[in-house]
Amino acid sequence: MPESNLFLNLFRHKVGKNYAPGQIIIEAGTHGDAMYVVLEGEVEIRVSDAEIETGGPNTILGEMALVDDDPRSATVVAKTDCRLLEVDRRRFQSLVAETSYFALEVMHVMANRLRKSNARIAST
Amino acid sequence: MPESNLFLNLFRHKVGKNYAPGQIIIEAGTHGDAMYVVLEGEVEIRVSDAEIETGGPNTILGEMALVDDDPRSATVVAKTDCRLLEVDRRRFQSLVAETSYFALEVMHVMANRLRKSNARIAST
Repeated sequence: MPESNLFLNLFRHKVGKNYAPGQIIIEAGTHGDAMYVVLEGEVEIRVSDAEIETGGPNTILGEMALVDDDPRSATVVAKTDCRLLEVDRRRFQSLVAETSYFALEVMHVMANRLRKSNARIAST
Repeated sequence: MPESNLFLNLFRHKVGKNYAPGQIIIEAGTHGDAMYVVLEGEVEIRVSDAEIETGGPNTILGEMALVDDDPRSATVVAKTDCRLLEVDRRRFQSLVAETSYFALEVMHVMANRLRKSNARIAST
């Protein structure tokens, strides 16, 4: 099974980019060519105005756009001062090819989100 | 980008196991150690009695239990006579490690399901 702070460990020497509270990192409906790793701070994932997840360091965001070409399905906003690393499609694909733990951990995150989403549907 | 019949191509020489219409392949809430690839026939994915997806050949099922250890989140039932191949955790992990297209295609399926799920939440 993948270890818990894998993304953070993988990118610990990277500087990333700063975001202020309230700043939009990903906007639903737009096209995207990168995923993000939260290095510091907290972000909020929103699907049509409902907060569906809050994420701290090691959270990944926007990974879906790297495996299909569809527009962003959720909006991500900085909740506090944040530092995020952008990982483009090429880097993502080489990580998947070279580091099976990375691929498994991305799947793990997606499975978690899908489970949460299914649970939400089941409760409506 | 991953090609479209990847799972079918990958396992085309495998025989698999037959299921009759109405037969349960995966039951929500149970523990599972395998994913399935539909080789022939049609299956139905249900989350708390609502049909959320119908799948034909090349559909994968139950892959989430291979990246976490949580119980099955959905029930899968054979809709017609089906032939399915079971892929256990060990085989899954070596496919992820050896075939980055396999990993990307699994992520692609998960992203699709998550998008559908999010769209369903957004419309409620």
